[in-house]
Amino acid sequence: MDHKLQETMLEQGKRARQAARVLATTPSTLKDQALLEMADALLANSAELLAANRLDLEQGAGNGLSSALLERLMLNQERIQDMAQGLREIAALSDPVGQVLGMTKRPNGLEVGRIRTPIGVVGIIYESRPNVTADAAGLCLKAGNAIILRGGEEALNSNRVIARVIAEAVVKCGLPEGSIQLVDSEDKEAAIFLMKMSDYLDVLIPRGGKGLKMAVTENARVPYIMTGMGNCHVYVDGWADLDKARQIVFNAKVQRPSVCNAAETLLVHSDIAHKFLPLILEDLQKAGVEIRACARSRQIVDGLREATEADWDEEYLDLILAVKIVDDLEQAVDHINLHGTGHSEAIISQNYSNVRLFMAAVDAAAVYANASTRFTDGNVFGFGAEMGISTQKLHARGPMGLTELTTTKFIIYGDGHIR
Amino acid sequence: MDHKLQETMLEQGKRARQAARVLATTPSTLKDQALLEMADALLANSAELLAANRLDLEQGAGNGLSSALLERLMLNQERIQDMAQGLREIAALSDPVGQVLGMTKRPNGLEVGRIRTPIGVVGIIYESRPNVTADAAGLCLKAGNAIILRGGEEALNSNRVIARVIAEAVVKCGLPEGSIQLVDSEDKEAAIFLMKMSDYLDVLIPRGGKGLKMAVTENARVPYIMTGMGNCHVYVDGWADLDKARQIVFNAKVQRPSVCNAAETLLVHSDIAHKFLPLILEDLQKAGVEIRACARSRQIVDGLREATEADWDEEYLDLILAVKIVDDLEQAVDHINLHGTGHSEAIISQNYSNVRLFMAAVDAAAVYANASTRFTDGNVFGFGAEMGISTQKLHARGPMGLTELTTTKFIIYGDGHIR
Repeated sequence: MDHKLQETMLEQGKRARQAARVLATTPSTLKDQALLEMADALLANSAELLAANRLDLEQGAGNGLSSALLERLMLNQERIQDMAQGLREIAALSDPVGQVLGMTKRPNGLEVGRIRTPIGVVGIIYESRPNVTADAAGLCLKAGNAIILRGGEEALNSNRVIARVIAEAVVKCGLPEGSIQLVDSEDKEAAIFLMKMSDYLDVLIPRGGKGLKMAVTENARVPYIMTGMGNCHVYVDGWADLDKARQIVFNAKVQRPSVCNAAETLLVHSDIAHKFLPLILEDLQKAGVEIRACARSRQIVDGLREATEADWDEEYLDLILAVKIVDDLEQAVDHINLHGTGHSEAIISQNYSNVRLFMAAVDAAAVYANASTRFTDGNVFGFGAEMGISTQKLHARGPMGLTELTTTKFIIYGDGHIR
Repeated sequence: MDHKLQETMLEQGKRARQAARVLATTPSTLKDQALLEMADALLANSAELLAANRLDLEQGAGNGLSSALLERLMLNQERIQDMAQGLREIAALSDPVGQVLGMTKRPNGLEVGRIRTPIGVVGIIYESRPNVTADAAGLCLKAGNAIILRGGEEALNSNRVIARVIAEAVVKCGLPEGSIQLVDSEDKEAAIFLMKMSDYLDVLIPRGGKGLKMAVTENARVPYIMTGMGNCHVYVDGWADLDKARQIVFNAKVQRPSVCNAAETLLVHSDIAHKFLPLILEDLQKAGVEIRACARSRQIVDGLREATEADWDEEYLDLILAVKIVDDLEQAVDHINLHGTGHSEAIISQNYSNVRLFMAAVDAAAVYANASTRFTDGNVFGFGAEMGISTQKLHARGPMGLTELTTTKFIIYGDGHIR
């Protein structure tokens, strides 16, 4: 990796650290003002942004990006409006910083409580969608953190304009220069280097799939919160309401297949498989879904492609669904806990005990009874925009909102107390 | 590292993972029964435990361990009683697992909430004091986690007996064999190997100083929570009540110098240094404290050893104190945020604004106004026994109690909901 780029990144780290000190005690009103300024600046510079985005799209098409990826990369006036609106909504959220949690007077007279504080410097590694640049920067700013952004190289021209425009808006409001910074490089090694900048980063948030996860596990020296890996399952129990099951499975697979909370595997109880599978598979195949089925499913419905062992671990993010028949709830739970990524898992059942058991035994960020996995989302859950959906168990699990971008510290008030 | 030991440890990992599945849904009453059984078993086997401990002490003395370390290593009937009592107190704490946090009905009719669940498998790396073996195992069991313990090699004979006795007690109550396991080896590489067992461990809790921290940062592939590093400061402001300041500084340094919340550096405002330093340094020197002072302090009090730059970063854990004069609050805060380990920091001041500023600007797990840093402790803060004191910002900060040994998952109840 280029030595000069390393130096630039370390310099960015130092500036971010200094900025974080200032942001930690910046009043909410000033942070909100900066967020509104960022929104205005994006709209005011939309022509330049659209031009940069066209460049990304042309290069992407030239490099053979799939139409799905190009669609995610594409900006238009409406999407820029949405980005600006997202920033305004973050400004309207209440500031978590400074909340005092559970202050109590101890028997010795000490008052002990916790206060919510920013984490410090956040690094984020993400791909494709340029709106993440504005969303992530806005959420971090509101939570009092400095941010270093590392977007995908395919979106570099767009991200460069977004980051410059919103960083300028922030400085214009009197906030420090290091508050929002972009790693301006196509070098893949820059992401690896960012993962190791433990002197300057307090947390790293990688958003992506298996490849990124492996790179992070191997290289990160900064504590990280992995987000966005979703091998999600819907289990249709022997006691399911089959009409509801049909709608939910269809929705979980088809409504938006490219996102992490879409279903990738359907598990069906053997008691109802002969009745349910022909119905749902017809629905899905009409919608263009390719089925990869276990041997028993293939005996019920003709002409299905056989699933391999690898299919149970695959996050297709596409109109493909793996299908497997299980003989009881335990088999379903075991399959999910073995192959799932701990994202979103659903049971469809009218049986009280089975629902309870599934909710308790499945080890995932979000566990559903009789609803589509597609609901795992910060807005749907009621806490506004999100930094991603954590599939880890430490610090944040599920959609990461403003609160998850903070930490706490104990504050203790005494009057000459000694031990 | 011995290949057979690696295999044994991987086998332990698998057993722990299986045990964690069972513990996750074990009722509180059964976990509490097991904790009481563990306490009884320790007392019933105290003769064997004392004999094993004598062996550790003899070997330790032969290997030239310091008297402070030998003191920490030593068990007697009273300390075994304390261990048993600690387990009984954990049994009496309320179980965090299954608590539902903030269930709400969303506009679309979905009910969304969070439920507290165990983390899974916890690994802990620690030193010297054998009571940690029982404390850590007890806390993990209560929180529904399986634990793999890696104590210091100097305590291996003691830990071996403790771990065997409490693991047997747990199995006797019908809980799985893999619930409590000890890495039974003196090989230092075993700790490194444990840090990499990401297929089986959900979190690693290292308790120790700089050397361990460096090994963890370099080697860990398991998410970790670093605990127990304490370079703590007391800042005596220009507006301090000097009588209170004298008592607090003395207490923070002298009452128990070998622990992580003891003070290591005294910062004194230049306005009161000429008055305060002669008093407090006389107190401290009478108690046998060695002073390492900045040049300005040495002009006020004669005969002080000069502090080097390295002293500001040192965690002495001994009767040694670094002393520095600062010219204002900002200098004190900057010194602390630069050199501190983010553990416990105190200001002594009667000035309202200075106290407020210090509490907000100091970046540490526990920030004190007019009280000794020695209070940072799970029991003092009111949530019972602790796994250690986290100096990290993610997941847990400050004393880690039962709650910090759990995670949450979202649970969502619908009735055929699709998006």
